[in-house]
Parts: sequence; structure tokens; C-alpha cells
Amino acid sequence: MRTERVTLVTLGVADLDRARAFYEAWGWRPTQAQEGVVFYQMLGAVLALFGRADLAEDQGRPGATLGTGAMTLAQNFATEAEVDQAYAAALKVGASALVAPRKVFWGGYSSYVADPDGHVWELAMNPFWPLAADGSLTLPGAGEA
Amino acid sequence: MRTERVTLVTLGVADLDRARAFYEAWGWRPTQAQEGVVFYQMLGAVLALFGRADLAEDQGRPGATLGTGAMTLAQNFATEAEVDQAYAAALKVGASALVAPRKVFWGGYSSYVADPDGHVWELAMNPFWPLAADGSLTLPGAGEA
Repeated sequence: MRTERVTLVTLGVADLDRARAFYEAWGWRPTQAQEGVVFYQMLGAVLALFGRADLAEDQGRPGATLGTGAMTLAQNFATEAEVDQAYAAALKVGASALVAPRKVFWGGYSSYVADPDGHVWELAMNPFWPLAADGSLTLPGAGEA
Repeated sequence: MRTERVTLVTLGVADLDRARAFYEAWGWRPTQAQEGVVFYQMLGAVLALFGRADLAEDQGRPGATLGTGAMTLAQNFATEAEVDQAYAAALKVGASALVAPRKVFWGGYSSYVADPDGHVWELAMNPFWPLAADGSLTLPGAGEA
């Protein structure tokens, strides 16, 4: 089993219905929804939306004020046009604009938006990072698990 | 290409050398390291460590104080014993204990630790979530991409 793994990314949200409406308008299809939590199957891993207060309690930080942290979730695309489309689509369904798509110094094309809870998503194209047909990312030179 | 994707998770860190030493002591093997950023290949996605101030600048939030946000990254395991081992191993390399492994109401077994920058990791076993041999997670009933 690979050591370098994330199987579940849980985002704490202030209003689960609002967060769910946002992700589903963006095109995410729920796999499981239970009382207070929604799961979205990704490629070999899962994204969950879960109430912020419950998350703090779960994490052993009851009462913590959980805001937008020092973290970005990114979706990489194969072309600049796809980044433009993804950025426009995200804004259309209620994401907040942080950085409009632009060429960046490392040779790519990148933009940033925030979801309704402030979680930051990068929508980008990195010409040095080939994507598989399913949208998964394996770095050049990465060893097998 | 699947809509439900995270190709890159970037964690903002106060001290890249410290963060890198932590993850590598934990067993993460770097795939690429460049000036100011380290990339770890996961299963079809990548984890990056990147300076907190640079991350804020990149995200279009220059000067933002980026702390521990409302987010958990999780590693799921197949057995309670593996969770116990993973928790002990994380503490041994400098993770902070948040919640020691214990049975939880939803039928699983879960623990929480924080990395040196406060990013929260859940180390858990969910008996309803079978893992593939490589450690990837596909929920029962999840449709194909």
C-alpha cells in the first residue's frame, strides 16, 4: 500500500445545503449522502462536505473557529481554454473570483476561486504535467507505488 | 475526464525544510523538489508543500494569515491495528496528537493528528469502505468516471 496517499478530503462548511448546491451546480455528483455529510467519489479518493462545528469536534478541537486555511485544492487541465472554461463555470455557479486565469512564471496558466465557505481551488494548466484521460495526474519520473 | 477530481493538494507551511523533514520521516518520498516547493506523487494526484506567504500571494490573498483551516486530509486503512500503527508512527516523527484512535459512532475506528503546521490528518478504518491493494478508495456503489 502506498504511503503517499490521501483517501478522503473533508471540507468543513457552514451550511451543508448551500455547499452541496454549489458543488452539484459545478457538476459534482454525490455518491452517498447521510445525515450531515455528503461524499463525492473522485479518482481513487473521496471528497466530503461536513459541518464545520462537527468537524472541529471530530478533530478534537471543539469550539475552534475553523476558517480558510493554508491549503489549495487544485484541478489541472490539459489546455488554457479548459482552464478559462472551468473558471467561468465556477464563477457562474457562485464561486468567488480570487485570481483570473493568467500565464504564470513557472510556464503554466493558473487561476484561483473560492467556494462559498472560502475553500480555495486552483484551476490550472501545467505544460510539464501530463494528465491521463481520466484526469488523474502522474508526475514525470514518479515511481510506481 | 471526471468532474470530481483533485489533482493537487497544496499545503502552506511556515518552514519548508521542517515540513519536508516531517513528511519524509513519515515515509513520503519526494518526486520533485524545486526552489521553494516539494511535490509528492500520490495515487493519480500530487501533494505539494509550499511556503505559506507564497501560497497566500499565489491565491490572490497577499498578506493573509493562513492558519489551520476547516479541512481534514485522511488516510484510510483496512484494520484497527494499522490505524494504531499509523498513529504511533506519526507521533514518533513529530505529529501532534489530537484524538487517539478510538471506536466511533459510525462504526469505524478513527484518530487525528496535526502536522508541524497544524494541518489535520485523520488516520482511520471504515469497515464499510473497502480499500484497493494500492490503498485507493472507491465507495460501494460509486459509478465509473
